Amino acid sequence: MSAITITAYDWVPDIAKGQVRDLRLRWALEEAGLPYKVELVAQGSQGEPANLKRQPFGQIPTMEQDGVTMFETGACVWRIAEQSEALLPSGRAERDACLSWVFAALNSVEPAAFMLGFLRFCEMEPARFGLKDAQTAKDMNPAAKGHFDQRLKRVAGALDGRSHLVAGRFTVADLMMTSVLVSAEKRGLMADHPEIAAYFELHASRPGYRKAIADQLATFAEHEAHYARG
Amino acid sequence: MSAITITAYDWVPDIAKGQVRDLRLRWALEEAGLPYKVELVAQGSQGEPANLKRQPFGQIPTMEQDGVTMFETGACVWRIAEQSEALLPSGRAERDACLSWVFAALNSVEPAAFMLGFLRFCEMEPARFGLKDAQTAKDMNPAAKGHFDQRLKRVAGALDGRSHLVAGRFTVADLMMTSVLVSAEKRGLMADHPEIAAYFELHASRPGYRKAIADQLATFAEHEAHYARG
Repeated sequence: MSAITITAYDWVPDIAKGQVRDLRLRWALEEAGLPYKVELVAQGSQGEPANLKRQPFGQIPTMEQDGVTMFETGACVWRIAEQSEALLPSGRAERDACLSWVFAALNSVEPAAFMLGFLRFCEMEPARFGLKDAQTAKDMNPAAKGHFDQRLKRVAGALDGRSHLVAGRFTVADLMMTSVLVSAEKRGLMADHPEIAAYFELHASRPGYRKAIADQLATFAEHEAHYARG
Repeated sequence: MSAITITAYDWVPDIAKGQVRDLRLRWALEEAGLPYKVELVAQGSQGEPANLKRQPFGQIPTMEQDGVTMFETGACVWRIAEQSEALLPSGRAERDACLSWVFAALNSVEPAAFMLGFLRFCEMEPARFGLKDAQTAKDMNPAAKGHFDQRLKRVAGALDGRSHLVAGRFTVADLMMTSVLVSAEKRGLMADHPEIAAYFELHASRPGYRKAIADQLATFAEHEAHYARG
């Protein structure tokens, strides 16, 4: 196993604190017990050529191992999982089920959560998004919430009262599903889904998740004074 | 190599024809030169227990190989790619870049395209989505289009005039990026992005893509009379 370096912001505004996606990599690395370093990207510099070269959308995180840089949390977390039985069972059927659920979290659940988040940003700053007023985004909300609810109902149906998506134990599938629900949970969007709320609470109470969050927030706190000055 | 079976609808309404996601699996299998069977799912039965058991969101496609069923096009296409150098180069750096781009297509580009599609459905049937009128979705459109445009600009920036995302040749990365742009292309949303439109056109003109589309449409045509009666 060779050294892993991930990127993370040195600071983000309050609204993003505890939600930035390096969280997913930190959590996976903690669960896998793999050592890693964190390279900080200065807030505001993420769209500059140095970061764009490794992350085409000008975001964080990225992951570097053996001189190879990856981007997208799905890709990075999957590569971490492949290095640890703690995240990925060795049986073919269970591995394939984990891969299906990792993509499901990112392509069937997160887009629904993303749309709600996008509407919220539009409501906060309508002019920035080319909207005439905040009401437009507000009016769209029930439709987007309906879609999100539908997706969560399907996840609850698949869980069918169980606490894990695959193999009757915590895997990368639960890590990613919990991860894509972080922002929704913070906004109280899981109130209509007690079984998903309980699922989230169970996995988000894992020591690995708590350490990941604590480490992310500690870095932001360290740089707070610098950015608060600005 | 053992037999692969994928699921596809027997028929869909005109608006979905040529866009249903089994297209991605058919295309990947054609490029890989792997033999496969197609099991048809009767339109309207996708949400029933038989299909929900293999596809938790009640959708198609799924893929079965060696008695293991997978869902999510990302997972299925990745597993197909792993079986063929035609889709996935063997070098570590190129494989990891392909995995990053497959997730990028599905988690950084498709959610933007999805949101535009969702607004379109809301505009067509506002009451069904809990909206008071079609205007709400129409008014939201510029914001969603702005986000989509931003994402396409980043993809164009990564291509930087090249025709392929990874390794200077067609890979699963191009297959997935082209695939998530299919619906946007049909709606003329790439008019502001000539470099992405050219990229799409290049890859969508591959024989494998054309065969995938033709096969999907042939099945729908075969069942048209049955559903048109209804």
